[in-house]
Amino acid sequence: MISDKMMEFVKNSSIIRAMFEEGKRLANIYGSENVYDFSLGNPSVEPPIQIKEALIDVLNEEAPGKVHGYMNNSGHEDVRESIASFINKNFGTSFNSNNIIMTVGAAGGLNVILKSLLNPGDEVITFAPYFGEYRNYVGNFDGKLVVVSPNTSNFQPNLDEFEKSISRKTKAIIINSPNNPTGVVYSEETIRKLAEILDRKQTELNKSIYLISDEPYRELVYDNVEVPYLTKYYKNAIIGYSFSKSLSLPGDRIGYLVIPNEVDDYKNLLSAANVATRILGFVNAPSLIQRAVARCLDAKVDLGIYNRNRELLYNSLLSYGYECVKPQGAFYLFVKALEEDDKKFAEAAKKHNILIVPGSSFGCPGYVRIAYCVDYSTIERSLPGFERLASEYR
Amino acid sequence: MISDKMMEFVKNSSIIRAMFEEGKRLANIYGSENVYDFSLGNPSVEPPIQIKEALIDVLNEEAPGKVHGYMNNSGHEDVRESIASFINKNFGTSFNSNNIIMTVGAAGGLNVILKSLLNPGDEVITFAPYFGEYRNYVGNFDGKLVVVSPNTSNFQPNLDEFEKSISRKTKAIIINSPNNPTGVVYSEETIRKLAEILDRKQTELNKSIYLISDEPYRELVYDNVEVPYLTKYYKNAIIGYSFSKSLSLPGDRIGYLVIPNEVDDYKNLLSAANVATRILGFVNAPSLIQRAVARCLDAKVDLGIYNRNRELLYNSLLSYGYECVKPQGAFYLFVKALEEDDKKFAEAAKKHNILIVPGSSFGCPGYVRIAYCVDYSTIERSLPGFERLASEYR
Repeated sequence: MISDKMMEFVKNSSIIRAMFEEGKRLANIYGSENVYDFSLGNPSVEPPIQIKEALIDVLNEEAPGKVHGYMNNSGHEDVRESIASFINKNFGTSFNSNNIIMTVGAAGGLNVILKSLLNPGDEVITFAPYFGEYRNYVGNFDGKLVVVSPNTSNFQPNLDEFEKSISRKTKAIIINSPNNPTGVVYSEETIRKLAEILDRKQTELNKSIYLISDEPYRELVYDNVEVPYLTKYYKNAIIGYSFSKSLSLPGDRIGYLVIPNEVDDYKNLLSAANVATRILGFVNAPSLIQRAVARCLDAKVDLGIYNRNRELLYNSLLSYGYECVKPQGAFYLFVKALEEDDKKFAEAAKKHNILIVPGSSFGCPGYVRIAYCVDYSTIERSLPGFERLASEYR
Repeated sequence: MISDKMMEFVKNSSIIRAMFEEGKRLANIYGSENVYDFSLGNPSVEPPIQIKEALIDVLNEEAPGKVHGYMNNSGHEDVRESIASFINKNFGTSFNSNNIIMTVGAAGGLNVILKSLLNPGDEVITFAPYFGEYRNYVGNFDGKLVVVSPNTSNFQPNLDEFEKSISRKTKAIIINSPNNPTGVVYSEETIRKLAEILDRKQTELNKSIYLISDEPYRELVYDNVEVPYLTKYYKNAIIGYSFSKSLSLPGDRIGYLVIPNEVDDYKNLLSAANVATRILGFVNAPSLIQRAVARCLDAKVDLGIYNRNRELLYNSLLSYGYECVKPQGAFYLFVKALEEDDKKFAEAAKKHNILIVPGSSFGCPGYVRIAYCVDYSTIERSLPGFERLASEYR
């Protein structure tokens, strides 16, 4: 009785559920402290204390109608103004509230912008490895996701193949840096070259190609690495941001889109994004949390905790003989599987009570994703298992 | 550059914006206290004090990871359990957490269930006058909205025409009671007959037809009228609820779907709704507000305030010669326009600084919707204008 499209998803989701059930089964047998679940990208670091204070202050200080009522579908004007100023201060841009649309997380934002842009059959290019939901988001609007194959030497995007994959049907590109699943930050050189290719192709094909930058991990970077702000490199760049990771608020569903004045068809695109927010059923990003995040834009979770996890896990795995590009952002390691079939390798890891996700889920077979947003002690306890797993393949 | 579908919306939204700008223009000339804006369904009564207390208690008492973190895409298990118990207590049903999916308001819930059900070309029937967004929600999934013409004698649905409009292509019905825009509550007799027709047609056509009840106004009823709980009358009934009006929290985007065990294909439908929540970009209903509403399910806004507005406006308009079915729910009057063209009539009202919405927007020309969720004093001040407007047509 359900729709044909959803029937496929339901079949797949039963596989995911089976994995989840397997985790519970292992925890029942061995105790949950002896099962090392590295499968989920759920922030393990507490939200900064400012967010709780801001929420309570909003509730005590602001009028209930403002805190809980409807506002413009694009979000509270003053919240959007604060965010624009914050971006301007940090990146030397010159946005105002009319460049910001508050969204139900980055996922909501991507759906809003894709709804606004895509005609059925339009192509959206992304770079493997990529966040698997992009396929679903593009599919929601009958677009076609075109995947550029991974460059496994350093996980910077494969730009030669990218250039060849652009056609008259290309409407948009989605990039994600810091990247899920690799943790790699696309370098400024990468961004410059990418922008050059897009500029050239726009002229050659005489059409607009939008670059959508999915940035839930922007603030989660280590080693003082800089994440280039895309609108400064390419005219048709749109940013999709989320507070889910920077403030550890993934359940509260709050983020925003940045649509610069300079993008082609700006006025229509802004109106379309406003309408799309409404008709997709979001109506608006949740109000109370909009008002709270505007009061703590400078706040950030304690990155030292993630960094400590990163160093321990990365150094330990290397010492056991694993291969991995050291990530400069997010909270994932993307490790070469020790056998060709990444799914079989993930199964082998499970025998050591280690739960990890096959790279195939991200369009990059032969690798596995290890989400280190877990307690430090979980990593410590898991290490003997990782070592035994490696020794099995020697 | 934007999508063709969205281009149409953008054109229409500029008309709505023009109306909004007109309101601002009038306020600038005459002072905002002398402009009577009855165009928006934005709750005017403050949220019950319990909601603020509950939010602060949640922040102080519960673990941050639980308050702000990811949970199952269907929502917090304990919240869903509380809601199921609340419904059972009030309506004698026997739901549990597996029958409840938390949603981003009723709008989010409708999109989730329509995504789950509709194949392109499937038909969804609704009764005029109807909430205009249904056309968009059904269109999001390439379904076709079939509208049964209004029964203007009492605004109960036109069941003869309904029966004839059911075909092999019919996948679902959407009903909305208390109704936006009429405020009419569909009687138990109506619901019984509707269910009989659906039962008969399901057998005749040998297919499942789902009845989706959109219930954001369930708690907003007067004169002790009862709103039948649909799952008790029809096996394939699904409820879409929202706290937007009962708790005056429309900006916070919180509601739920009820999917009973008894509906055809229950297991797949539940899985599909869970997946749809994720891939549509909602991911989950906002977490903090989920946790707070679960603590004040018994709370309700002060309905006396809306009732006072209703009585004043209804009685006054009748005394001026307007015709209107007295509404028993929601916060709208649906008044017969004093000329055939409801758009022209709304324009004429504007000359008295009265802003109302033409019934054409709800599939019911010849009427206008007056949203009385405004201050009592606004209604008082608007009455001379309504009287003059009526006298112009005498």
